[in-house]
Amino acid sequence: MAVQQEDLTLHEYHCSGNCYKIRLTASLSNIKLNRLLEYDVLKGETRTSAFLTNVNASGKIPVLQIGPTTFLPESNAVMHYLAHGTSLIPRDRLEHAEMLSWQFWEQYSHEPHIATLRFWIANIGIDNLTAEQKAQIPAKRKAGAEALDRMERHLDKGAREWFVGKGVTLADLSLYAYTHVAYESGFFDLEDWPMVREWCRRIEALEGYVSMAD
Amino acid sequence: MAVQQEDLTLHEYHCSGNCYKIRLTASLSNIKLNRLLEYDVLKGETRTSAFLTNVNASGKIPVLQIGPTTFLPESNAVMHYLAHGTSLIPRDRLEHAEMLSWQFWEQYSHEPHIATLRFWIANIGIDNLTAEQKAQIPAKRKAGAEALDRMERHLDKGAREWFVGKGVTLADLSLYAYTHVAYESGFFDLEDWPMVREWCRRIEALEGYVSMAD
Repeated sequence: MAVQQEDLTLHEYHCSGNCYKIRLTASLSNIKLNRLLEYDVLKGETRTSAFLTNVNASGKIPVLQIGPTTFLPESNAVMHYLAHGTSLIPRDRLEHAEMLSWQFWEQYSHEPHIATLRFWIANIGIDNLTAEQKAQIPAKRKAGAEALDRMERHLDKGAREWFVGKGVTLADLSLYAYTHVAYESGFFDLEDWPMVREWCRRIEALEGYVSMAD
Repeated sequence: MAVQQEDLTLHEYHCSGNCYKIRLTASLSNIKLNRLLEYDVLKGETRTSAFLTNVNASGKIPVLQIGPTTFLPESNAVMHYLAHGTSLIPRDRLEHAEMLSWQFWEQYSHEPHIATLRFWIANIGIDNLTAEQKAQIPAKRKAGAEALDRMERHLDKGAREWFVGKGVTLADLSLYAYTHVAYESGFFDLEDWPMVREWCRRIEALEGYVSMAD
């Protein structure tokens, strides 16, 4: 069941996993994002005074613009807005809380390690990192591997097909976004986490799936 | 409207703001937490194999135990579970997403700076920090002040009483937990953020409010 369509613009940086989460959720929810506005974060295009004043005072993408004057930041919150009323959001009180639990875990214990390493290595380039960033690489590699270990154990040798309940939810989509491209940092190979790799294949087989490059 | 009461145990570290969020939400929702089980995180009590196996494989508190066998981690997700059906969670689709947006922002852009500095200085002690931790203090001070600036601007010279809509929501409670004790690191004084200070006073005047020490 798709929600009523409004005029939706995504302010984004296309190769960001946080932005991709939103495009994937919209596609699986049969919602069309009318416009994608691209910002080059490497050139500071989300730190201009126009962006800070008009789009997001935090200077970050993604932001969903709803109609002319409403701006909603934070990828996981935007996913909830878009998937409202669909089966991607469980109605059961406990399953709903479990879905949120994985989404908060993703932002605190997965994204800052796996996504940041990918951004530093694949987008900025290791030779361009600051000494402070380089010094954080070993700790982020360790924490990123621990996050993938946690996911592998939760899938319980294949006994669980999805992170919450019996079907795909926003928890899976939030976790998938940076997991399936974790290898781009050069530090993680999903061969080492086979249940996670199989779960990625399940998401890619969903009707309405779109890839990050789409 | 309080939800049906179950047997609820909070696994916690009492002076953690993330744990306090849950006690405050429970109190404002008229829900009794039957037991509070204290762990000394400084002694590694959430990293024992018993804790990792039985309570939370991520080795972190808080965790809400629901009945004998269900364990729900992540403070903001637990708040949703407890406040289900109350006015702390807006039903309006946009306000609901805006509330989540502030909760995700809190975990990504507020807590890692303001809460971490408080923990390092007030709990661990500056002389006991690693060189890597000490090197991160200036960046965390800057990011913490930026987070408080963002909150101050959102309250819009007092035009907004609450972060979302016209009444208190989980967004306010999530943000309040570490904001009102930000001074404990020695780096932040809410005199510099007067709208934030007034908003703290509004929360403290709510019926059912409990302090962190309670």
